[in-house]
Amino acid sequence: MEPVVLRPASLVLVGASERSRWSRALLANLSRHGFAGPVHLVNRGGTAVDGRAAARSCAELGAQADLGVVMVPAPAVPDAVAGLADAGARAAVVLTSGFAETGPDGAARQAELVRAARGAGLTVLGPNSLGFLNLHAGVVAWATPIELPARRDGIALVSQSGATAFFLAALAQQQDVGLSHVVATGNEAMLDLGTVVRHLVDDPAVRVVAVFAETVRDPARFLDAAEAAQAAGKPLVVLKVGSSPATARSALAHTGALVGDDRVFDGVCARHGIVRVRSLEDLLTTADVLARTGRLGAGGLCVVSNSGGVCEIAADTAEALGVPVPEIPADTVDAVVAALPDYGTPHNPLDLTGGVEPAGAGDAVAALGRSGAYSATLVPFYPVPEGTAGLAGRQDELYRHLARGLAEGGVPGFLVSYTAGGIGPAGRAYVRDAELPYLSCGLDRALRALACARAWSAATPRTRSLPGSTRVDDRPRSERETLALLGRHGVPVVPQTLATTPDEALAAARASGGPVAVKLASPDVAHKSDVGGVVLGVDGDEEVRAAFARVTAAAGPGVRVEGALVSPMRTGGVELFVGCSVDPVWGPVLALGLGGVHVEVADDVVLRQLPVAADEVVDMLRALRGAALLRGARGAPPADLGAVGAAVAALGDLALALGPELAALEVNPLLVAGSRVEALDALAVWEPLS
Amino acid sequence: MEPVVLRPASLVLVGASERSRWSRALLANLSRHGFAGPVHLVNRGGTAVDGRAAARSCAELGAQADLGVVMVPAPAVPDAVAGLADAGARAAVVLTSGFAETGPDGAARQAELVRAARGAGLTVLGPNSLGFLNLHAGVVAWATPIELPARRDGIALVSQSGATAFFLAALAQQQDVGLSHVVATGNEAMLDLGTVVRHLVDDPAVRVVAVFAETVRDPARFLDAAEAAQAAGKPLVVLKVGSSPATARSALAHTGALVGDDRVFDGVCARHGIVRVRSLEDLLTTADVLARTGRLGAGGLCVVSNSGGVCEIAADTAEALGVPVPEIPADTVDAVVAALPDYGTPHNPLDLTGGVEPAGAGDAVAALGRSGAYSATLVPFYPVPEGTAGLAGRQDELYRHLARGLAEGGVPGFLVSYTAGGIGPAGRAYVRDAELPYLSCGLDRALRALACARAWSAATPRTRSLPGSTRVDDRPRSERETLALLGRHGVPVVPQTLATTPDEALAAARASGGPVAVKLASPDVAHKSDVGGVVLGVDGDEEVRAAFARVTAAAGPGVRVEGALVSPMRTGGVELFVGCSVDPVWGPVLALGLGGVHVEVADDVVLRQLPVAADEVVDMLRALRGAALLRGARGAPPADLGAVGAAVAALGDLALALGPELAALEVNPLLVAGSRVEALDALAVWEPLS
Repeated sequence: MEPVVLRPASLVLVGASERSRWSRALLANLSRHGFAGPVHLVNRGGTAVDGRAAARSCAELGAQADLGVVMVPAPAVPDAVAGLADAGARAAVVLTSGFAETGPDGAARQAELVRAARGAGLTVLGPNSLGFLNLHAGVVAWATPIELPARRDGIALVSQSGATAFFLAALAQQQDVGLSHVVATGNEAMLDLGTVVRHLVDDPAVRVVAVFAETVRDPARFLDAAEAAQAAGKPLVVLKVGSSPATARSALAHTGALVGDDRVFDGVCARHGIVRVRSLEDLLTTADVLARTGRLGAGGLCVVSNSGGVCEIAADTAEALGVPVPEIPADTVDAVVAALPDYGTPHNPLDLTGGVEPAGAGDAVAALGRSGAYSATLVPFYPVPEGTAGLAGRQDELYRHLARGLAEGGVPGFLVSYTAGGIGPAGRAYVRDAELPYLSCGLDRALRALACARAWSAATPRTRSLPGSTRVDDRPRSERETLALLGRHGVPVVPQTLATTPDEALAAARASGGPVAVKLASPDVAHKSDVGGVVLGVDGDEEVRAAFARVTAAAGPGVRVEGALVSPMRTGGVELFVGCSVDPVWGPVLALGLGGVHVEVADDVVLRQLPVAADEVVDMLRALRGAALLRGARGAPPADLGAVGAAVAALGDLALALGPELAALEVNPLLVAGSRVEALDALAVWEPLS
Repeated sequence: MEPVVLRPASLVLVGASERSRWSRALLANLSRHGFAGPVHLVNRGGTAVDGRAAARSCAELGAQADLGVVMVPAPAVPDAVAGLADAGARAAVVLTSGFAETGPDGAARQAELVRAARGAGLTVLGPNSLGFLNLHAGVVAWATPIELPARRDGIALVSQSGATAFFLAALAQQQDVGLSHVVATGNEAMLDLGTVVRHLVDDPAVRVVAVFAETVRDPARFLDAAEAAQAAGKPLVVLKVGSSPATARSALAHTGALVGDDRVFDGVCARHGIVRVRSLEDLLTTADVLARTGRLGAGGLCVVSNSGGVCEIAADTAEALGVPVPEIPADTVDAVVAALPDYGTPHNPLDLTGGVEPAGAGDAVAALGRSGAYSATLVPFYPVPEGTAGLAGRQDELYRHLARGLAEGGVPGFLVSYTAGGIGPAGRAYVRDAELPYLSCGLDRALRALACARAWSAATPRTRSLPGSTRVDDRPRSERETLALLGRHGVPVVPQTLATTPDEALAAARASGGPVAVKLASPDVAHKSDVGGVVLGVDGDEEVRAAFARVTAAAGPGVRVEGALVSPMRTGGVELFVGCSVDPVWGPVLALGLGGVHVEVADDVVLRQLPVAADEVVDMLRALRGAALLRGARGAPPADLGAVGAAVAALGDLALALGPELAALEVNPLLVAGSRVEALDALAVWEPLS
């Protein structure tokens, strides 16, 4: 993406007029926020706008402009974009809506727009965008009246929805969050989310990219951007909608987009160290905290407050978020006790008590930070007040000593308002003067953001591994063939014998030397146990004959019966479910979960894009809620996670090698008992040949 | 509790002085907020305060005062309280700290205070209180400078922490939440939480009681208050800390309070329809929403916005909270389509689109409300702005038409700011004028509050059932004796035979007619399988003899061996865990969860105070995450929940009847297979005889 898109030195507004709300807001924003370069105006009549001359076309302009902002009616947009070439423009922002978001006619018009832009050698942001802000370059090309964040800093906001970008910018202003950019990508006819994020990651002024996404149109570009963010050590925080049926319904209705299992995106985030959040407030707060802490070190959280009740709320909330709040180390207790009034007690969370001396409060915070036990400090405290002429006396001293203590402590830390609020001009001025690292979002959001910052800091994100080039042309149709194929490709499978007669079944059972499982062998029956085609724990000649008869008779009329599969009976161990399928957005994915009743009871499944490496499978296993089972619950030996990882990774590689005709490849169960890992049953489903 | 405590007609401030921060704040609050009755001053020197005369003692006062506010140093408090009788006072608020919260000396002083108060016939709020506000009676007896909520309404706030009460009141002011009372109960030397809540529930001006609690000192009084709230149909919303180890540590250090399993309090809330929340903001927002909606009817949530992105966030968040967002009913679609621009699509959540006509927006909201499909409507929208002279034009029209639509819709509904914010004086005036039901807490908190309101509305809360008076004096020490006792008291148990010789074991096994379980019978071994004292699936004479030998030999030296228990082998079904124990605060409790591996994997347990009725056990079973297993997962027959309920209730009744010497009574597993319910193993633990 060319830097000129978000950093133009000159602009031309095409469709500028006194009547247009967009035009008025753009001109007001550009002048109010001090755009340094020339701003040219074009409209069909060549009518002056607020006394400023306008040309009838870019050709008539007689001047150069880096970027065109296009706001003419939709049918006129393609020509207007093409005409920008006459001003030497290299990029356009199209504000006009009425394109792909409205249906097939709009989509055709959008295609026409893209052709026109390509023909003129231009890149387009939008259509259906509200524009962008680049605060470091002083460009506020935004089409609604907007308050700039009071603090210019390193957070770039990107949103497909212009309205949502606007709300986020307003919230940043209210919360004093330091932004670098706001970009509304709109319909993403040319510049998609991934491209814009990638560009922002590469900008040295950006430290965190915060994204609101309704869909990911180009997964590969998005992953490129995520990997670039990882490599640069810049957190990518994402609020992506689509987890509810109602949202999926809307998405289908609005854009015709197929929405797959939302947990696939959780898997993408887990692999690439993307921080996923669930609300607009959390998006902004998490980006703010990460921009200010950077990568956190080891250790739990230290909480210091002057309210015992709030200390307890903080401890409960942190615990629920999985953030440890460890006790004060022995060698720091004395320093904390010395800083407190006589009746204070040295615990984490630390209740400073209402009677603490301001200097003592600062000393306690400094000592705790320096103790080495904590990766961050949080001080829930009175919100910095607004509307008073200035703070003085005890409250001022408390803030200043706490600011000193946080600085001296040497670990990232914040003073956070007890409850959610905002901060106005006087408060912002005070916070700057006192060098107070302040959050006005309230305790629970601050804790949630710190939990995310801890997770991001501790994650070992991976890059995509590339699928191997081998191609496998087998097309197994039955359990037997599928298990055999798995066995040939590195997935351990239970020994199995196809018996076509009772005598063959008997011989196989005797050879296995213990109880066996007897299952119907048929290419036509996918779920054998549903039709009574499985008998387990078969022991003794009589039982084997009876089982053979039962399973081969279980198939209804017209079903091909190959015979019965005889396998040694396995009991104990942990059953896993492993399934490969194809997500409409992210392509081939692997689902891994506890099998058996757990699949139905707990819905305890983790997904990843394929291919997965064996060690990433181990990460997936550890992320299961039921992971304790694999550590050897109830006296069972712990599972050999490496062996499971190898088997599952081999299964995933095979699924990829089988190519796009494969609709699904499942092993259920994959039995894990200590170091024994075996597929007991398998199923392949193929796309109908077209 | 005497009404005079929170509704005095006259006051005396004992310890009033120009130097005291409390005294200054109290006098300023009383005069600023217009206390109508006389306020007398007492201090040791009889020194005038800001030109107002003060008496040296209540005896010298020569006037009557209903309520004394005491702020003398801690050692002087008991005498000061006793002296209030000389002014005819019937109650006191003690602001002074330095009592039970500081340790044994303080606790002794607190006991002295209580004696003095009783001797003088007074009731005491505090000590270590910051006072109270009764907004309907015009009493602001609060010891720090405080902004009153702009709206006087029906929410009573009660907090053990004065500081937290203050933060909540400040948040109510910022969010325009209508309060009736704020009460800081402090150390609760006489008036405890339950007593104060009960008093407030009985006050006709109160519609919702919101509580911040660090501990429940008198569970019986608290439950009385909760039942009174249920009976009155007034929601009780509680933020109670204590779920984390760090909080339990603090509580132990600060007050010596034993903190039990926090899930017991979840059980108390479930039984009594108490709404439990997890943050200060949620406490206030949930109380606000419930005060304004009352009990919600049937139906899901309707969401209407002018931002498609926010519609999707709302749908995802509602889904995650278990709040359905059902599609628009067919007979309402036309009305919605007619209200929208051409390109709008009629879905729930409804995207009004940016181009909607204000009247159309109102019409759509009204039509959806009237459809009968929804119990509530939520309209995420631009926050009502502050700092402009007044709204006009399109935005004003939108707000007013949306207010009309919400009113015409006929179901409770709110317009909520997209993101968290507050509302100032101009915004409040606008909202009143437009009769706009407005929430400034932001979308996610509003949805959380509505989810709570739905749950409260749908709950069928119960009152306590009273334990029966029967007393059981058995003291079983072994599995065999415990199972036998259970069997005699209505808990179905698996048949068992005590075999003292291999031949007896053989006879028992033959009599049972199938595979058996053989277990060590010993009063000294609680966990038999840990020592190899259990053999399952024993089939055939040889195996029975071998199993008998093995389990009886499994006990180590010095262990009493009674023989082996032989029971028919049970397989299949669902294993439950049922345990009775004693919580330090709430007394005898019952824990019910999935047994087997689920206990370790899912920690899926629900707790209740004993006794529990059979139908409440059914509610508990349905609240388990693994409830699906009981509905007959994987082709198994559904469990007979009534039979399980009867068995578990009988177990709980027995635990109570066994009296306080019982430390624990566990059945693990209680096997449930269709209508067969059987305790397979049981254990009783007794308190050491003292």
